[in-house]
Amino acid sequence: MVVVMSVGADDEDVARVVERVREAGGEAFVSRGRYRTIIGLVGDTGSFRELPLSTLPGVEQVVQVGKPYKLVARELHPAPSTVRVGPAAFGRDGFTVVAGPCAVDSREQALEAARAARRAGATALRGGAYKPRTSPYSFQGLAAAGLEILAECREETGLPIVTEVLEPRDVEKVAAVADALQVGARNMQNFSLLKEVGRLHVPVVLKRGLSATVEEWLMAAEYIAQQGNSEIVLCERGIRTFEPSTRNTLDLAGMAVARRESHLPVIVDPSHATGDRTLVGPMALAALAAGADGVMVEVHPRPSEALCDGPQALTPDELEALTAELAALARTLGRPLTTLPQSTKGASG
Amino acid sequence: MVVVMSVGADDEDVARVVERVREAGGEAFVSRGRYRTIIGLVGDTGSFRELPLSTLPGVEQVVQVGKPYKLVARELHPAPSTVRVGPAAFGRDGFTVVAGPCAVDSREQALEAARAARRAGATALRGGAYKPRTSPYSFQGLAAAGLEILAECREETGLPIVTEVLEPRDVEKVAAVADALQVGARNMQNFSLLKEVGRLHVPVVLKRGLSATVEEWLMAAEYIAQQGNSEIVLCERGIRTFEPSTRNTLDLAGMAVARRESHLPVIVDPSHATGDRTLVGPMALAALAAGADGVMVEVHPRPSEALCDGPQALTPDELEALTAELAALARTLGRPLTTLPQSTKGASG
Amino acid sequence: MVVVMSVGADDEDVARVVERVREAGGEAFVSRGRYRTIIGLVGDTGSFRELPLSTLPGVEQVVQVGKPYKLVARELHPAPSTVRVGPAAFGRDGFTVVAGPCAVDSREQALEAARAARRAGATALRGGAYKPRTSPYSFQGLAAAGLEILAECREETGLPIVTEVLEPRDVEKVAAVADALQVGARNMQNFSLLKEVGRLHVPVVLKRGLSATVEEWLMAAEYIAQQGNSEIVLCERGIRTFEPSTRNTLDLAGMAVARRESHLPVIVDPSHATGDRTLVGPMALAALAAGADGVMVEVHPRPSEALCDGPQALTPDELEALTAELAALARTLGRPLTTLPQSTKGASG
Amino acid sequence: MVVVMSVGADDEDVARVVERVREAGGEAFVSRGRYRTIIGLVGDTGSFRELPLSTLPGVEQVVQVGKPYKLVARELHPAPSTVRVGPAAFGRDGFTVVAGPCAVDSREQALEAARAARRAGATALRGGAYKPRTSPYSFQGLAAAGLEILAECREETGLPIVTEVLEPRDVEKVAAVADALQVGARNMQNFSLLKEVGRLHVPVVLKRGLSATVEEWLMAAEYIAQQGNSEIVLCERGIRTFEPSTRNTLDLAGMAVARRESHLPVIVDPSHATGDRTLVGPMALAALAAGADGVMVEVHPRPSEALCDGPQALTPDELEALTAELAALARTLGRPLTTLPQSTKGASG
Repeated sequence: MVVVMSVGADDEDVARVVERVREAGGEAFVSRGRYRTIIGLVGDTGSFRELPLSTLPGVEQVVQVGKPYKLVARELHPAPSTVRVGPAAFGRDGFTVVAGPCAVDSREQALEAARAARRAGATALRGGAYKPRTSPYSFQGLAAAGLEILAECREETGLPIVTEVLEPRDVEKVAAVADALQVGARNMQNFSLLKEVGRLHVPVVLKRGLSATVEEWLMAAEYIAQQGNSEIVLCERGIRTFEPSTRNTLDLAGMAVARRESHLPVIVDPSHATGDRTLVGPMALAALAAGADGVMVEVHPRPSEALCDGPQALTPDELEALTAELAALARTLGRPLTTLPQSTKGASG
Repeated sequence: MVVVMSVGADDEDVARVVERVREAGGEAFVSRGRYRTIIGLVGDTGSFRELPLSTLPGVEQVVQVGKPYKLVARELHPAPSTVRVGPAAFGRDGFTVVAGPCAVDSREQALEAARAARRAGATALRGGAYKPRTSPYSFQGLAAAGLEILAECREETGLPIVTEVLEPRDVEKVAAVADALQVGARNMQNFSLLKEVGRLHVPVVLKRGLSATVEEWLMAAEYIAQQGNSEIVLCERGIRTFEPSTRNTLDLAGMAVARRESHLPVIVDPSHATGDRTLVGPMALAALAAGADGVMVEVHPRPSEALCDGPQALTPDELEALTAELAALARTLGRPLTTLPQSTKGASG
Repeated sequence: MVVVMSVGADDEDVARVVERVREAGGEAFVSRGRYRTIIGLVGDTGSFRELPLSTLPGVEQVVQVGKPYKLVARELHPAPSTVRVGPAAFGRDGFTVVAGPCAVDSREQALEAARAARRAGATALRGGAYKPRTSPYSFQGLAAAGLEILAECREETGLPIVTEVLEPRDVEKVAAVADALQVGARNMQNFSLLKEVGRLHVPVVLKRGLSATVEEWLMAAEYIAQQGNSEIVLCERGIRTFEPSTRNTLDLAGMAVARRESHLPVIVDPSHATGDRTLVGPMALAALAAGADGVMVEVHPRPSEALCDGPQALTPDELEALTAELAALARTLGRPLTTLPQSTKGASG
Repeated sequence: MVVVMSVGADDEDVARVVERVREAGGEAFVSRGRYRTIIGLVGDTGSFRELPLSTLPGVEQVVQVGKPYKLVARELHPAPSTVRVGPAAFGRDGFTVVAGPCAVDSREQALEAARAARRAGATALRGGAYKPRTSPYSFQGLAAAGLEILAECREETGLPIVTEVLEPRDVEKVAAVADALQVGARNMQNFSLLKEVGRLHVPVVLKRGLSATVEEWLMAAEYIAQQGNSEIVLCERGIRTFEPSTRNTLDLAGMAVARRESHLPVIVDPSHATGDRTLVGPMALAALAAGADGVMVEVHPRPSEALCDGPQALTPDELEALTAELAALARTLGRPLTTLPQSTKGASG
């Protein structure tokens, strides 16, 4: 950390900063320039961050140096991690496709979507039983009944289940069924929920918040890891900008930064990022080319009857065409699509 | 709602839209132009919003008309509401000052801050016992012990307590002490929390999310109101933009829009919006001039020792100078600062 | 400036940075921490900024310290400046109202608007003869004929003229008529135009770009000042954000930062910031309360016939009501509205 | 276009709108709902856009329907265009690589970079002789001398030249040397410049503005086309958002929307979008996979000595590795990298 003193700061101001740093167990190196003095802080940066140094007289700016996250950082954990979700795997060795409906609308719709996902080569099934909706008048999900349907989908297709959990007290209930818990964009800084999923040993798919920086996203992952659960898959799903032609702005460079700074796998959700079926394919291919470790794509047997986010869902045929393109590209890039082990239930289905 | 057909849409495409609208109980008026056809939807817009019309063939765009919120809208409830928080009031008749520390650091600090708030003319005390922090390594608040300290502050000063609640299962515990529950910016779309505070009869201060539109903010209030609790004070606290010189960008015009569209009182938090003590005063005065119904300002006896957000806290003297300026301006504008009733405990203090 | 080395950087990497800094005439202070080394740069920061230090091996981050602007900075020019535009003045002593139509639509409309501005107490007239329009199919202004009409308005009302110039080769032509040249938001980084207006001795109203940081805005002013022209009035007019309920997001805190960092006067344009007549008044009052040195407001005799931006124009009566409110507030704040000298032509009108 | 009346609007309000539309030569279809009335406008939408209908009493909202651009739209020009820049081509049939230094620093540097570009398979050379810089104290380019150097680079390598023009009066001078004129992001709404380049018959590379929507970007292209010049290549180069880890946020979905809405070729500049050498490769590959018609990449023989934007420049070796990857991917996607005709000067070099 670096403390920049203002032009008019005097010796006493400098001494005061040095003292506060020493009290916190650090060392302070003072560089006096012609106009201004700069103080370099050396020691445990974590503890310095908590000091309100910028409130001291004569301090103009406090510059953070280094990363505030540790457990999820590549710096002290250079080897990339592989996260297993049931029989599926997410990591740097391959490219993993997760597919499924936005929400579980009904038993039949979910089963059809699951079969389509399996047929297309996806290795995990997504689907919401508990849905966070902007309007209280929108469909809120089938809740417990939805979880049962998802379990039935897994039973038939062999695909592990990724499903969202909305609040701390539901975590155990959802984890009893799910193979991975999804923490949605709106809950990325719901710290109670992060801590709760951190206490279990269930993989977590952590979506980036609509207005979260990459650093804040990694700090959210740090919350989970700090509780003992490092089985985290990061998921970029678009950020909020001024551009109205897409629902959000997919930040593939931010995805690449997360992958560079962290050892965790990072996947991309082109469906929520764009909100537009015609853009899902191009953005999924772009995610693969940009180095992502997978994609999460919405599929619905009949998008025009979907109870949630129909405009962004692919049909089963469109999904199959997309995964074929992804597979070809992945081979060229030397990172093949991951598959389920032969022994997986439904693997021959 | 209006459905805009694409240039190449044919009669069958138009008929399909009309049919879906009629199935949902609405009426559809078709206007055929030289190049394209426009279909106006008449009926219960709430139900149309759920139809995935944009997935139908030949549909180019679906334009939402009208507001998605009802209970909090001025349209059907033109008289502005007054919300009472203990002996304090928020509404269009006056301007209410809430002050207090960001977090309860200690008993002594909280009491000093509460006395400063009372002395300066604030009519409610803010202070966090449960703190949402970006880093798991930051101070997380004193929790239950913090609530007890806040109760002691109220006991001594007579100021009602506004304090944040972070998760659904804490709502009753916090509500047992607080006069108003604060839902923070990061939780504005934590729908489980919104529903839970909606089930009680305790006033709620609902902060705008960092990247929430005014419409989404009002929809979050609608979630609370829909559960039966209409005692809601909206609080603008800055949105996230590209500008780095302030912590967030205070959106006073957004505040004014919320006040125009809703009957609920709307206050402003210049401390979190700017993150900079030197800007808190100017922005508090601007909020008053722009028509806000109050401000929520941070005060700390010794900002450079604060465990949370020291750089944005005023000293007790600065707070007193600010409330004097606010009072003078408020008189000119004909909307005096609200005061506590004479009978309030500590009112003579 | 501060150079932060990466965790793995070695002595050679550090030595390379130190050498490059010395070659550029600066001094480098090295602070070695347990994990990483920080190098403080002392000397002429302007020259360091041009060094591509971040491309050197082992460098993780280069942190800019201090301000990149000099001539417009308060640091070396602590006394605030007053800028005179004909008989009008902009500065810290009073609050100046500029009013007029968005564009000169016709002689009659401009004269009516100018009379309304004068009557309401404005001390300068705005009005566009050359209009930058997003669409080539929109009204582009009356050009030279518009300038003549503006001159006639001044002749009758005594109000000095603020009007926009769009390209370098028009600067002299427009300056021959105008009392102040406006550089619009879209041209804030049109550096050729900035240099050209910098070569004259005519005051400039420099609008903030839609996506310009406060620092970039001050750098644009620096371009003008560096050519020898320091008669600059800065004008905040809203930035682009995700919020759709207003045309732009008025950044009053950014205005306050500009006023703190620079000695130049800073005014606010609530009309373009909001694009909404009902918000112009509240935001003008807020600008005054937040410390702005003036406002620029659009007025049109018949907004529903305006050829440009009708929805944001006040009627003459609305303008008069607003300036009365501004005057009352300004008195309370001890910064009265500026007036024209008695000797000004039309002053008795 | 659709006019939405407010809930309280009466028959007279509706009649007034209908009349204004008819005066402008259009037809108005009135749909009366239970709560509100919607008026569909049919006719020449261009002329309706200029009507200030939202200022009429009883009007709540005016919804734009259809695209404001015509000449660059795919709607009336469904076949994609190919734009020729000297011997190079940009279009849907292949993927074109433009490479070169950010700025021409010196004759030797430019020649080395040009040779590297040629060797790597680029078919056009980029390089700035006139540089728009945020600071007046930064290197501003070699101007006319830079153009001569670029001509020499072309002479030796056969690569056509893409170089930026900053102001209307320079257009002819730069066009005398350049094969394509670049209009930079900061000038995307410099309408005088757009009109000037529109008057010539020289291809234009039009960069998207930092805060321009896709629609505004296409409107800027429309300005050029409207003057008679349709030889336009659009270039996405990142938009401004809150994310600080990259210089801008590359909007590949916005690129895809531009390509869907317009018949013009669209390329991507990953160097300016990210400002980070390590991200240029991944984003160039992603651009290709997302369907872009080419990339523009910066290369410098010695990035750490660059006078401009060194941190984002590839070395010649890195460029060669990247184009090899692009070529492999392009083959898989069935859109091979474009090459120069055999007859091109330097083609055997």
